Amino acid sequence: MTLPEGYKIRRIEKKDYEGVVETLAVLTTVGNLTREQFESIVDYWNSVQMYHDKSIYKYNPSVIVDVNTDEVAAVGNIILEQKLIHEGGICGHIEDIAVSKNHQGKKLGKALLGYLSDLGFQSGCYKIILDCNEKNVKFYEKCGYSTTAIEMQKRK
Amino acid sequence: MTLPEGYKIRRIEKKDYEGVVETLAVLTTVGNLTREQFESIVDYWNSVQMYHDKSIYKYNPSVIVDVNTDEVAAVGNIILEQKLIHEGGICGHIEDIAVSKNHQGKKLGKALLGYLSDLGFQSGCYKIILDCNEKNVKFYEKCGYSTTAIEMQKRK
Repeated sequence: MTLPEGYKIRRIEKKDYEGVVETLAVLTTVGNLTREQFESIVDYWNSVQMYHDKSIYKYNPSVIVDVNTDEVAAVGNIILEQKLIHEGGICGHIEDIAVSKNHQGKKLGKALLGYLSDLGFQSGCYKIILDCNEKNVKFYEKCGYSTTAIEMQKRK
Repeated sequence: MTLPEGYKIRRIEKKDYEGVVETLAVLTTVGNLTREQFESIVDYWNSVQMYHDKSIYKYNPSVIVDVNTDEVAAVGNIILEQKLIHEGGICGHIEDIAVSKNHQGKKLGKALLGYLSDLGFQSGCYKIILDCNEKNVKFYEKCGYSTTAIEMQKRK
């Protein structure tokens, strides 16, 4: 995983509220997520560990930030799922990757995906999956992913 | 959700070890999952709650069993993911649905999917997703799901 100069990757912190909400808005509806809700979700994410190793988080919300200003440039998450199949294997789910409008064209999406994938495999995943639109398949193929199935959904 | 006579649905229990492992083998590799591993994963699943309501489990491993013999006829899970998007929304992930060879042709898969979907929406999901092979799309469409994206994977 190579990161352009001037950026670093770390776990989401409470101070990232505004930058994360603004960055996720590129992706989809965030709605009126208050600072209080954001902070309590961050607390919750920090409170859930995996059973095979308590130092491993179930949720791994991560941001790429500007090293000088700490501005959020990209955000993403990998959630680890404890299964029974594959000898009690762990499957990683990459979710909600977004790059801020101000920082696009610098391959930050690819860098974040690489970071989250490495983190997943280091945490014991036998596979990592993600869902994407047809138009993004080529991008993920360049990142080492391959098409495997169809995502289906039901909305409330 | 309608269940054929003679069956009931409940949360997985430790006593289901043999039936669950046998049923999941229809689906994919389970490997040498020992009773001890199974029991500790069940304990772990029972220990992780959602932050907005501590009575709601993150993992909802469920079985359809024969009311008389308690034999496992089908197994499935819905995992609830706490997001930031959609005002701190919850996304349900349906995983690892399998019907035992001895109980196929009774629409147990459809019944279990309906149960898990209801459980997800009652637990606050704004959407529920699952990944399936092309050949199963029609079945899930009959259950109210629609195709939305491509699943991609990376293996270790």
